[in-house]
Parts: sequence; structure tokens; C-alpha cells
Amino acid sequence: MRKNYILIVLLLIVAQCQGQSNDSIMIRKIYDEALTNSKCMGWLDFLSNQIGGRLSGSLKASQAVTFVQMELTKLNVDQVTLQEVMVPHWVRGNKEQAWVTSNTKKTMVSICALGGNVATPKGGLIGEVVEVYDWLEMEKLGRDVISGKIVFMNHPMNPKFINTFEAYGEAAKYRYGTAAKAAALGAKGVVVRSMTLSLDDYPHTGAMGYVDSIGKIPACAISTIGAERFSAIIKKDKKAQFGFSMSPQSFPDTLSHNVIGEIVGSEFPNEVILVGGHLDAWELGDGAHDDGAGVVQAMEVLHILKALNVKPKRTIRCVAFMNEENGGKGGEKYAGDAKKDKRKTIAAIESDAGGFSPRGFSFKGDSLIILKAMSWKKMFEPYLLFDWRKGYGGADINHLHDQGTLLIGFMPDSQRYFDLHHAATDTFDKINKRELELGAAAMASLAWLLSEYGVK
Amino acid sequence: MRKNYILIVLLLIVAQCQGQSNDSIMIRKIYDEALTNSKCMGWLDFLSNQIGGRLSGSLKASQAVTFVQMELTKLNVDQVTLQEVMVPHWVRGNKEQAWVTSNTKKTMVSICALGGNVATPKGGLIGEVVEVYDWLEMEKLGRDVISGKIVFMNHPMNPKFINTFEAYGEAAKYRYGTAAKAAALGAKGVVVRSMTLSLDDYPHTGAMGYVDSIGKIPACAISTIGAERFSAIIKKDKKAQFGFSMSPQSFPDTLSHNVIGEIVGSEFPNEVILVGGHLDAWELGDGAHDDGAGVVQAMEVLHILKALNVKPKRTIRCVAFMNEENGGKGGEKYAGDAKKDKRKTIAAIESDAGGFSPRGFSFKGDSLIILKAMSWKKMFEPYLLFDWRKGYGGADINHLHDQGTLLIGFMPDSQRYFDLHHAATDTFDKINKRELELGAAAMASLAWLLSEYGVK
Repeated sequence: MRKNYILIVLLLIVAQCQGQSNDSIMIRKIYDEALTNSKCMGWLDFLSNQIGGRLSGSLKASQAVTFVQMELTKLNVDQVTLQEVMVPHWVRGNKEQAWVTSNTKKTMVSICALGGNVATPKGGLIGEVVEVYDWLEMEKLGRDVISGKIVFMNHPMNPKFINTFEAYGEAAKYRYGTAAKAAALGAKGVVVRSMTLSLDDYPHTGAMGYVDSIGKIPACAISTIGAERFSAIIKKDKKAQFGFSMSPQSFPDTLSHNVIGEIVGSEFPNEVILVGGHLDAWELGDGAHDDGAGVVQAMEVLHILKALNVKPKRTIRCVAFMNEENGGKGGEKYAGDAKKDKRKTIAAIESDAGGFSPRGFSFKGDSLIILKAMSWKKMFEPYLLFDWRKGYGGADINHLHDQGTLLIGFMPDSQRYFDLHHAATDTFDKINKRELELGAAAMASLAWLLSEYGVK
Repeated sequence: MRKNYILIVLLLIVAQCQGQSNDSIMIRKIYDEALTNSKCMGWLDFLSNQIGGRLSGSLKASQAVTFVQMELTKLNVDQVTLQEVMVPHWVRGNKEQAWVTSNTKKTMVSICALGGNVATPKGGLIGEVVEVYDWLEMEKLGRDVISGKIVFMNHPMNPKFINTFEAYGEAAKYRYGTAAKAAALGAKGVVVRSMTLSLDDYPHTGAMGYVDSIGKIPACAISTIGAERFSAIIKKDKKAQFGFSMSPQSFPDTLSHNVIGEIVGSEFPNEVILVGGHLDAWELGDGAHDDGAGVVQAMEVLHILKALNVKPKRTIRCVAFMNEENGGKGGEKYAGDAKKDKRKTIAAIESDAGGFSPRGFSFKGDSLIILKAMSWKKMFEPYLLFDWRKGYGGADINHLHDQGTLLIGFMPDSQRYFDLHHAATDTFDKINKRELELGAAAMASLAWLLSEYGVK
């Protein structure tokens, strides 16, 4: 009896080693394929250089939808579909202008409108300025000081955070929320320091929100160099005036699409592993890192599996989400439809942190399911993915949280991301081919393990 | 008695926890300082943009020596010295030219001379070509085929390696050694495919070696795009001719210097922790990543400690080595002098893999000493340095190996390094300020722990 028991234990150990070792061989094949025959760099070149910045509702966004649909179809996967979704349609208008006037001296500074913003009066909005560091300071000054002024929210991202997303998480609320809070105190306009850790002359756009009952005031982002200059001038001359001119317009919601391609699972077709990124992008740059990279990496997952002739046990589905940047309607629509579907998205991997060198994954969901996924970490260490942690999935897949989906954020190196995020500097020349491919391979490897073993 | 014993054990545990926690606080201070008040980016700007490519023996190399000496002196460290070292003096000469002629059609391709190389005859060296993949193939073809020809060594770096230094390690011997081996078979010239994983039109230089008894033939590196084009032409036309023209010259060895600055240890001044990089750089680019970054990071270690008013127990010494690229004379000289010194370099950290985002450290030395250093890994994980391994130290510090010095290579992310290594693309605009600072902080933290606890 005891002998049998020992034998069984030994056999189980051998089987497990065999399993891990076969899995490791498969992962090696996935990486080899990604590093030698990938299509993602070519796709991203097209998305960035032939299409370019593609905000929801724009012609470019619909060209991007068609492009991804066509390329997925060429991969000869089992199914390619468009999922209809109504999205906001906001247009920037003319190139924005801004200036600071002190004692008749006029200094031009670089700004851009924040997404969803209203226009200034023709000729610009001009006024005295109140510079503040945060909302606490603004509210302490109160209506007496703020009313009728332009609020300059000069809150830098904190360079002491090691992961730059933490610095962004702390500071980005000032971009999103200052216009509403300043309007409530009677301000007539808002200038926000750009959300970047680099000192340069590029303004960074991004979503902001109004509160309808309070009313809408124009709000722009100023480059960090512009913010430093602006701050220096108004510290010397309290009566200095800020002027800016913007002509954005909001149009009625427009029909757009999520693009979905999938390889149907051979054993559990109704269990779906999603890999995705978002197809819309701010139009100051060409959206190469945010988030063209994520979209082509998700597409590359299907390409690698097809090239290796792998038949996953569970369905692997690539989703190019629409409208992450200014509404999140694509993610919302996907989750809403998923709820009614008999097929369940058991896990979702989103790449939306740039196409940089892979560092790890971040997991959100049930603790036991996360433990199971984390047990695969060792197999990824030869590929230098050491950083596996509980945390955040992604803006598009987050809507799936209440369906019990395991949410996984692909984490590339974060140091360079906010140099280009939402700015004219987010362009294809900042992409490194190998870094992009390594990210696709990491996502494909994890998606494949999830398809083999599920989450239970 | 038993009670006392338990008490002692508890006290020891508390002391150790306290120790680690105090150390962690110190490391946090080092990072905060590096990320907010560092000088390294400004120094690198000067080295790259005001001085530029600074090959051993050149005026720029001696300007760089003076610059580093002055800046270390300004830091008000305990001692700044120049260590004399004789170095090779090789000069590239005129811009190199190369062309492929097939059926009277002439195609220009981008090349550069390899370091230490001899000139072609005036008007260029022209001849038929034998393309080979490696030395095995070349030697199989033998003298009958090779004699009188130009050998085209078209050996690409292997993209399947995850750490690009492994691909370089496998391929770089063809740059260094092909001229000598081809000359032994009677070849009259050599063209080597550039050592890079990217497909672009920049040739990458680097050291090569002759065997005096065989004789010297001109050898150049061709860009990867040039290599692809060249290969396609000679596959169609075996009689196609390659021509190239280069005018490098070697001059007598020249006096140069390692620059050394140090903070003397308060308790064990004779135990030295070295931090270093190399000051010389190939002159096609400005040497920002290779290895201006390493030099300014090593300087920054002293700056951080001075700024924090830290008195290390052991001596911390910054060394800017001369002549890593084409001779290694600076490292050799340092180790030679160290042998005679009553002070011992117990550990040495070299940064010579670019100024990219830090990933970890690689250790070479006695296993027990390495184990002790590796026990500090946990304290570096909040700073995303997960990759600690046995391996390689660095070319300059390697000469210290037989003195029992613990050799430590700082390992940044390797993906982008060979895009610019030894090429015109190695320029300051490829540097990210935060990545550079994070590297300096990592080195300072490890140097500080070594100075507190030694290696025994």
C-alpha cells in the first residue's frame, strides 16, 4: 500500500514536471515566432502613419475599424465581427493659441484643449489668473478670489513614484475635475499643467468632465515648459493676464464599432479568453503607443497561434475596443453584450500602457483564481517578466469585473510612457520593434495557458 | 536560561528587522534625491553635446577627462585624482565610401571602418566577393576560394535571445576576428554585417584584432540594410564587385587618464567600493549611452551621498575609465595599481550597458560573497530591480577578478541598446532622464549597502 502511494506521488510529480516543461516549450515557440515572423510592427506602422490619430467618431477611427477587420480576416481566424457602439464625437477645431501678458509684454505658451471641452469666445478668453497647487488651495481661496478669474492648476506629477502610473493616478484628477470645481467657484476658464514627468513644450490632452448644473467653462492643458514660464511671470506680476483661444465642438453621438476576431476553443468554446487594446487615440500624435501598440499586440496573439497551428482548448478572442479615451463606450458595450451571451469571458488581458519592454502582469479578480495564474510566473522569468502583482486590469475590460472575469493588465516598463501620453510626441518612431513583439509574446503565452487550464 | 535564550533570539530578530527597515529608509532617500535633484542628466548633456564622441587619444577624450575631474572636484569629495595610462591612438580619417558594382550598375552602401583598422589603397579596394555565414563556412571554402577575394561575413545577431547581450556575445566575435582569419586564407579585404538587431542604414563600428604574423587587411562594417542589399545583389550576380575606401591611421600610444574621485570611509577607509563606467566612446555618435551614461551615473553616486550628507563606513570611489573600447588599458592600469595599494577594492559596480530602465544586477566572484549581496534583493524590488543573477561584471572591472573583488554589472533593459551601440545613433536624444536617474539610484543604493556591511 505504502509502496503504491509513493509510486502515485512520484507519477504525479513527473506528470506535473512534464506539464510545466511542455508548457515552457510552447512558450518558447510563441516567443520565437513573435521575434522572427510577427506582423505587429507592420500593422502599427499602418495604423500610425497611414491612418494616424483616430478619435472616436472621426473618419480615421472608422478607417481604423475597417483596417483591423480586414487584417483579422486575412489571418483566417474562425470569426471576425463588428460590434456596434454609439460613441461621443468631439472635434478639436483650429490649433489652439495661448499667451501671457505682463506689462504689455506678450509671451506665447503651448496649450491644447482638453477632450470634451467647450470653445472660448472668438478672439479668445482673457483674464487675470489665480495659480493653485491643488483643490484644497483653490477652495481655501474661495469664490471671492476665484470668481471671474482663470484658474491655473499647476500640480506637477510626483517624480518620486517609481511606477509612473502611480504619479499619474495621483495627478490626473486635476485634469479631469478642475473645470467643474473651478466653475462652481465662479471661474471663467481653467489652465491645467500637462500630465507628464518630462519638462518639454508639448501640451498633453485627455478627458475632462463638466457638471451640467454648474455650466461649462473652457479648459486647456499647458506644456510643462509653458507652465514653468507662466508661473514665473505671475509670481512677479499678480496682474498678468492669460489669454487663450480654442474652437472645439461636440457633435451628436456617432455609430462606431469594437472589432472582434476569435479562434474558437476546441474543448470549451464557451469559455473565452479576451486579449485587447483600444483602437481610438487622441489626435495630437498618431496614437502609436496609446494604444495602437495594444491593439496590434492583441491581433498578434491570434497571428502567432495561427502561425504555430495551435488549437486552443478555450476560445481566444481579440478585441479592439472603441472609445476608451473619451467615454469608455466600447468596453461598456462589450460587457453589456457579454452578460447576455451564453459564452463567458473568463479572463481578459488588456495592453494599454504603451508598447515598451515587458515587465509583468497585474491581476484583478478572485484571489484563488489570481493565485492559480500567478503559479505560472516561473515560466515567464526567462523572458524577464518578474513583476506579477495584484492590481488593475484595464479601462476597457474593467466593465467585466462584476461578471467574475479575471482582469489582467499587461505591464510594460512605465518610465517613458508619460513623455508621450496624449501628446504630439506619441508617434511611431518611439516604438521599438522588439519591445512590441516581446509584449505580444507575453500576452500570447498567458492567453494560451489560460486557454489550456482555464481559471478554476 | 531558556528564557534568556528566547529573549536574545527575539532581540536579534528585532535588530535585524530594524536594520533592514533602516536600510530601506536610506534607499528611499537615495531614490528621492536621484529623482529630484540629480546632476547626471546635465553632465551627460555636456559630455554628449559639448564634447561628443571621445575615442582614446583624441582631444575630446582629454576634454572629457578634464570635465569629469572638474565636476568631481566641485562635489567637494575627499579626493580627486588622475591616474596616468598610455592608450592606443587610432583615427578614422575621411568618411568611408562603399559600393557594389553589378553589370555596370553601382549601388552605394553604408559602411564604417572597424577600430584599429588599416586604410584601403587610395581610390579604394575593389574585388570579387565571397559571402559567408560564419567561420566554419569560410574555412570549408578554404584558400582556393577565398584567396584574392573580399570576404563578406553576413552573420546576423540572433533575435531569439531575450537579453540582447547574449545575441551580441554570440555574434561579435565575427567583427573582432574575421579579418585575421580571412587574411590567413589570403583574402584581401573584409566586410562584416553590423552588430545590431535593427534593420537600418547605420553601420556599427567596434574593435577588431589583427594577427601580426599574418598581415593586416582592411575591414569595415556594413549597415544591416546595406548587408541585405549587398547579399541580394551577389546572390544574383556571383561576379559582382565590392569596392570600399577608408583612410584610418594608427598613431603612437598617447598619455591619457582614468579619473578617480572618492569619499573616504569613516570606519574602514582601506576597503574600497568602486562605481564606474568608461569615459572613452566611439566617435560616430556622441557616446551618450555607451558609456557617457555609466560615467555620469557613477559620478551621481558620489553626488547623492554628498547631498544626503552620508558618511559611508567604507570608501566609495567613482572611476571614469579610459580606453574600454579599443584596448582596455584604463581597466588594466587601475587593477595593476590596485594590486600594489594597501587599500583593497572589495567590490566594483560597472555601468556599461546603456542608460536604460534598470532591471537588476549581475554578479561575478566568490559564491558566498554573492549570496550575501543577493540577500539585499528584496529591498530593491519596490524599485523594480527583480533580476539578480550570477554572471558578468564589466570589461573595465574584470581585471580585478584575480584580486578577489566582487564584480557587479548594473543591468538596464537591453532591448534598445544594440540599435545604437557603436553607431551614429548613440546620441543624447535617446536618453530618458528618469531611466538614467533610476540607474544612478540603484548603483548608489547597492554601493551604500556594500559600504555599510562589506562583503565578508
